Amino acid sequence: MPELRQDPSTKEWVIIATERAKRPHEFQRPNPPVTASGLGCVFCPGNEHKTPPELWRFPYRSKTWTVRVVPNKFAALSTQATGSRGEESPLYHRMDGFGYHEVIVETPHHDRPMPLMETEEVKQVLFAFRERYWALRKDQRIKLVLIFKNHGPTAGTSLEHPHCQVIATPVIPSYIRHKYDVAIRHYDDTGRCIYCDIVRAEKEAAERVVQHSEHFLVFEPFASRSPFETWIAPLRHNSCFARVTDEELGDLAAVLRETLARLYYGLGNPDFNFVIHTAPAEDEAKPYYLWHIQILPRLATPAGFEIGSGIYVNPCFPEEAASFLRNVRVESTKPAVIARVKQEQPTPQVRCGGHEK
Amino acid sequence: MPELRQDPSTKEWVIIATERAKRPHEFQRPNPPVTASGLGCVFCPGNEHKTPPELWRFPYRSKTWTVRVVPNKFAALSTQATGSRGEESPLYHRMDGFGYHEVIVETPHHDRPMPLMETEEVKQVLFAFRERYWALRKDQRIKLVLIFKNHGPTAGTSLEHPHCQVIATPVIPSYIRHKYDVAIRHYDDTGRCIYCDIVRAEKEAAERVVQHSEHFLVFEPFASRSPFETWIAPLRHNSCFARVTDEELGDLAAVLRETLARLYYGLGNPDFNFVIHTAPAEDEAKPYYLWHIQILPRLATPAGFEIGSGIYVNPCFPEEAASFLRNVRVESTKPAVIARVKQEQPTPQVRCGGHEK
Repeated sequence: MPELRQDPSTKEWVIIATERAKRPHEFQRPNPPVTASGLGCVFCPGNEHKTPPELWRFPYRSKTWTVRVVPNKFAALSTQATGSRGEESPLYHRMDGFGYHEVIVETPHHDRPMPLMETEEVKQVLFAFRERYWALRKDQRIKLVLIFKNHGPTAGTSLEHPHCQVIATPVIPSYIRHKYDVAIRHYDDTGRCIYCDIVRAEKEAAERVVQHSEHFLVFEPFASRSPFETWIAPLRHNSCFARVTDEELGDLAAVLRETLARLYYGLGNPDFNFVIHTAPAEDEAKPYYLWHIQILPRLATPAGFEIGSGIYVNPCFPEEAASFLRNVRVESTKPAVIARVKQEQPTPQVRCGGHEK
Repeated sequence: MPELRQDPSTKEWVIIATERAKRPHEFQRPNPPVTASGLGCVFCPGNEHKTPPELWRFPYRSKTWTVRVVPNKFAALSTQATGSRGEESPLYHRMDGFGYHEVIVETPHHDRPMPLMETEEVKQVLFAFRERYWALRKDQRIKLVLIFKNHGPTAGTSLEHPHCQVIATPVIPSYIRHKYDVAIRHYDDTGRCIYCDIVRAEKEAAERVVQHSEHFLVFEPFASRSPFETWIAPLRHNSCFARVTDEELGDLAAVLRETLARLYYGLGNPDFNFVIHTAPAEDEAKPYYLWHIQILPRLATPAGFEIGSGIYVNPCFPEEAASFLRNVRVESTKPAVIARVKQEQPTPQVRCGGHEK
């Protein structure tokens, strides 16, 4: 029987659709191997002149680099704009497209996506995130700094070389205002952060937990919008990603790498997006919001129903997805530079759909 | 220079991204021709036994049919469920997945998508929509009846035979509550329906209008989320689609067919979704909401930024898209049964991106 579940952080419903249920391994889609070197790839070493002038590199002032930040050549927002609102209209509001749009090149290695990196490499990327957050945050016109990753063509990128993006906007989106309204109401009612309540409940119930570390919990949310939606949330209340400590950053690097490796090996390098949800620029120390990472593999296509209702149809119970991911064997040592999906991937015979629940 | 625009009906911003701007014809993607007959297609005449038992057909009680409604074999919601809420939890709400999910087979002709139909055929489909709305609406547990169409694989369907879907839900989605909040506030402030205000403003400004008829306006919204997003809205205030008159239905059939034909010929049969936005079941005669059809060609991929912020990045100014669509020559007589994109499609040299505006 299908089930309707409400996401407590947005109050939106999802449908867990059992008639369309699939076993987890049916979501496996071995993507073609990454080419070993990107001929003409603008993010590969030697082609640094092909990007707009570099903004940041690690190690600092070094001839070589392990992480590099450049402006997005096809920026959605422009630092040349002023953020002026233009003529007032009773119905329509507009402003010129001021903002920042940067690319974080995660590694010099074209064929080393994040799940195949060493933890130390992931940590450098996260360190770059934190650095760029504070650099952009200095601009008083910026209201939100959003860090995200698009991996694979159906997730919105055609560039294979591992990279993330940062967009800093001069407005707070209505979508985020809405999530805040929900969180503030919960805080007013209970005195607690709703996200911390969720993390606590998930840790206790355990059935949707993928793994946990000293500082983070990895779980499939109760009302997952799509198969294998995964959240990584801190155990310490903190509304702003960029206020993570160095120790937390190291732990997060290990947890993020492992989680992405579970998806990579378990599902065959699926296309995915991840987003760091963090408080707007002036709300970095609020008691009602918790920063967290949302990972969304692109395994289902939102269509007319989702567009019209905002309700997502998910053909996989999150409890079954969590059980599947827990059972994926993850390399903990440095992997060889392998680009293709490992053949010995486990295929636990877990029924994902709930008929046998 | 990019531009930020706010959708007055949702208060959400979109970015019109000029650095990624494309000319309209760059969005053309001639899809492969539809096969003349669908071998083994469950929606083709002769295969009626392959669908779940029929719910409705037109003409009534006739041996042959022109429109046919059947339950969705892979229904997202089930009439076998009861809509019971189950155990209360302080954090998580759930209910069993009660609801209706039906398929409207639009035509016996496998290779005649809506833009290639005669107006009379489209009218029969719209008539079926109205019939099914009232049939499902009778069930007091139903809160929303959503009618939509997925056309093409990237729009969420692999079935080629022309069909639409209806899903009736036992909950009102948070997304729709939010749109209502905005509309009600506008009504409280001004005494007017915000959607009627939009239609009036668009008709007057004309720059985003694609066409208008006696009863409907077709336009590209000011804050279009994606290239060639198109709305068809009634000129008479009415919050419920199913309360259209017979005369309006005939006019809508002509306007919908022409609009879809503009997209079909102008852009090369793009994948698209359309949704009939209509008031929830108990709000069918409200003064603050206007039913309308939203058509969304799948010409851009929402990615991490859209997921994280709710802000869509659209590489095409709606004014340019409207100008392009106005210039697409549309067959007004009965077309031959053509399945491939016409070769003589017009390619007006309109710059879509605003640099030359």
